[in-house]
Amino acid sequence: MADPKIGVYGLGTMGSALALNMAEKGIDIAVSNVTPDLIEAFVPRAEADGLTDRVTTAPDLAALVQALPRPRLLLAMIPSTGPIDEMLGQVIPMLDEGDTVIDAGNADFHDTRRRAVQLAEHGLNFVGLGVSGGEAGARKGPSMMFGGAQASWDGLKPILEPIAARFGDAPCVARLGPDGAGHFVKTVHNGIEYADMQMIAETTDLLRGGLGMSAEKVADVLEHWNDGALGSYLVEITAEVLRYADPHGSGPMVDAILDKAGQKGTGRWTAIEAVTLGQSATMIEGAVAARAWSSEKPLREATGAAFGSARLNLAVEPDDLEAALLAARVIEYAQGFRILEAASKEYDWSLDHAAIAETWRAGCIIRAKMLGDIATAFHEGIAADRLFLAPAFADVFAVGIPALRRVVAAAVTAGYPLPVLSAALGFWDTMRQPSGTANVIQAQRDFFGYHGFDRVDGKDARHGPWWD
Amino acid sequence: MADPKIGVYGLGTMGSALALNMAEKGIDIAVSNVTPDLIEAFVPRAEADGLTDRVTTAPDLAALVQALPRPRLLLAMIPSTGPIDEMLGQVIPMLDEGDTVIDAGNADFHDTRRRAVQLAEHGLNFVGLGVSGGEAGARKGPSMMFGGAQASWDGLKPILEPIAARFGDAPCVARLGPDGAGHFVKTVHNGIEYADMQMIAETTDLLRGGLGMSAEKVADVLEHWNDGALGSYLVEITAEVLRYADPHGSGPMVDAILDKAGQKGTGRWTAIEAVTLGQSATMIEGAVAARAWSSEKPLREATGAAFGSARLNLAVEPDDLEAALLAARVIEYAQGFRILEAASKEYDWSLDHAAIAETWRAGCIIRAKMLGDIATAFHEGIAADRLFLAPAFADVFAVGIPALRRVVAAAVTAGYPLPVLSAALGFWDTMRQPSGTANVIQAQRDFFGYHGFDRVDGKDARHGPWWD
Repeated sequence: MADPKIGVYGLGTMGSALALNMAEKGIDIAVSNVTPDLIEAFVPRAEADGLTDRVTTAPDLAALVQALPRPRLLLAMIPSTGPIDEMLGQVIPMLDEGDTVIDAGNADFHDTRRRAVQLAEHGLNFVGLGVSGGEAGARKGPSMMFGGAQASWDGLKPILEPIAARFGDAPCVARLGPDGAGHFVKTVHNGIEYADMQMIAETTDLLRGGLGMSAEKVADVLEHWNDGALGSYLVEITAEVLRYADPHGSGPMVDAILDKAGQKGTGRWTAIEAVTLGQSATMIEGAVAARAWSSEKPLREATGAAFGSARLNLAVEPDDLEAALLAARVIEYAQGFRILEAASKEYDWSLDHAAIAETWRAGCIIRAKMLGDIATAFHEGIAADRLFLAPAFADVFAVGIPALRRVVAAAVTAGYPLPVLSAALGFWDTMRQPSGTANVIQAQRDFFGYHGFDRVDGKDARHGPWWD
Repeated sequence: MADPKIGVYGLGTMGSALALNMAEKGIDIAVSNVTPDLIEAFVPRAEADGLTDRVTTAPDLAALVQALPRPRLLLAMIPSTGPIDEMLGQVIPMLDEGDTVIDAGNADFHDTRRRAVQLAEHGLNFVGLGVSGGEAGARKGPSMMFGGAQASWDGLKPILEPIAARFGDAPCVARLGPDGAGHFVKTVHNGIEYADMQMIAETTDLLRGGLGMSAEKVADVLEHWNDGALGSYLVEITAEVLRYADPHGSGPMVDAILDKAGQKGTGRWTAIEAVTLGQSATMIEGAVAARAWSSEKPLREATGAAFGSARLNLAVEPDDLEAALLAARVIEYAQGFRILEAASKEYDWSLDHAAIAETWRAGCIIRAKMLGDIATAFHEGIAADRLFLAPAFADVFAVGIPALRRVVAAAVTAGYPLPVLSAALGFWDTMRQPSGTANVIQAQRDFFGYHGFDRVDGKDARHGPWWD
């Protein structure tokens, strides 16, 4: 007879995968769903995997709560919008002091913070758990980003560590901070994912369109890069998808796919939170823009018809593209960790950036070899706002920045848009200028609005002579 | 004896300037302030301008309300955050049905919408009035963007039209829509202002650093451009500030100004609202980023020390810079109007884009010759999402895009950051591609998350063969 340690509410794709993962790791679970159909569908899947002994099905939320030992651990994998609030409204009166509700969906961390306050008023704990890795990850080993009380972590750790992805022996799950910290880290993860996907798409475009390679040949190139410092899940799968032929037509599968990218919000959230925090994640902004503009195909067709859509041959070497992509990826992570640090200060989370990098080394979509160097850099004390100054990346930039410069200049000349790769270079060239162009901005602002400025020599004269 | 038509509450820089402007135009006003000091300071200013007969001073808000005829028009020029909410809490019980309160500050339009609902519950009207032009504009003729009820506009029009800036005979003020429409248009105005200022700063950097011109010589170049299609307040004043010598040192004034740009929020708001609306104002995002990064001088010094801050000579012609800046400015306005249209649809404002362009032709910071062509393009029926396809700009792009391409490629090669000018080209090169790179993104998303895609041939096969 099963002796459930945790309840899983919501048996859609991700919820059922997580539940089966737990059962497979020897954790007795109770499961339920708002509608009975998904409970019924879950039972034969548990049977097929030989896990029936570990599963207690509950017909509804009340029965699920009843089935759990105190302090209860109740994990919800349902939409982190209206449904989770509705569920919380129902379940709060059923729970007892010290119980924990876990939201494992892609929540806006502001909502998670609000819900944590709401539950605390009832003596309950609320955990925002970021889960990355898609269905396969959830079933076999996701990367998980925990935000919540230490007491909840103490209870959940024996459940989450066994089901997490492993990097070597290390489970890719950690308590990153209280309340919304886990969901925020997951949001930034997804923002980085947007930028990484777009950079790879831009590079693929340059290889195919600019250098005239076939999809198969580009796959070879990416596969080769994947064996080196660019090793990562996203480079690997891009190589893989490029090899597929279209089963419903001729030619590569990718050429049959409409160039309109969907987005579910986390990339936008990252861009918005960055700006709200006084940061700018320009590479993520570029990726969000590229997706938004991809949906405007009729306008792009009209513009191409009016002004021409031709591109020239590209005067770059594939090796430059590899080096450029690598340097840009470090900058992309650096921008991501700058946002994380800004949020950590704003919300008093004391985020451990090395732990975050380690959590991302396996199981999640952005997993990449580079994350080991990033974790090491943080362990060695590099400040969170300047990951790009870590010694480990000096050679990456020494080779990669000149390459990135050649790539962007060639693409600009040939007419290829590189919203993310060019944003990386814009960040770099801004950051390496001790004196930038903002003196002109300050002069303008003082001229038209008497806004005042500081002087480079520190003298106390805050307005220009145009006011005399 | 004065017979006040409107009350002005808040006698700081902008409020007192607006009040004196009204009195000068023959409009009797009543004025007050939360503290008596600014009322006392206002009286001699009105005397100095010979306007005492038109001014009634009220010692407090209650007396100000008492001094006004019904339906009352009460204009607040106080911070559009806590102070305006506090003022509304006090004044609502003093007002009568049909009275109007006007917030003339830089409000977040979401707050304006909320306040409009709040006042409507009491039978009162709330107007969000965007005012641009700084102190001088407020005193001599600002551009004003009105959002509120038609009844309020009917009452205010005889006051706002005489005090507004004039383009020819046309007053630069219009009712643009209900509730938050005016404040939203003002927010986008400021976002465009950010991008325009940054583009001019980037160009100044290229002229001085890249082509080795003195500040005085750059001023000559900008002044020459200002006589042509780039004619605009911001180009004009940049030329002017570049001519000033530093009264507290040697060399040009601009070189003594610390390169840390301040920002008060409207640029950020524009970037955030654009993304929230599913748009991306990448040029404004670039300008916001440049200001944010300008505040990180110690990090920029450290990066420059580690990787070098040298820039090469720039291989471009000044004429290319002029043509590039002109093309980029059209794209900047196009991005701005795309946001306006998205908000218009989202909030059901039916914004009149021609009227907006006309409102911006004089008085405001972004006033520019180009706005006449923009207004004409909208009058001739160009859709709001594709201003760049208007026939009036065909020649601008025919010359300007190749120039922009040369400028960005040269700057990238030489090491100059162009966050806004390069964003313009990224937008352009994305928009002129009927088939973009999003097919690769969609393949990736389907591979790792079973997200599905559409096919170019419309066949109903929404997943890749990697799932077979």
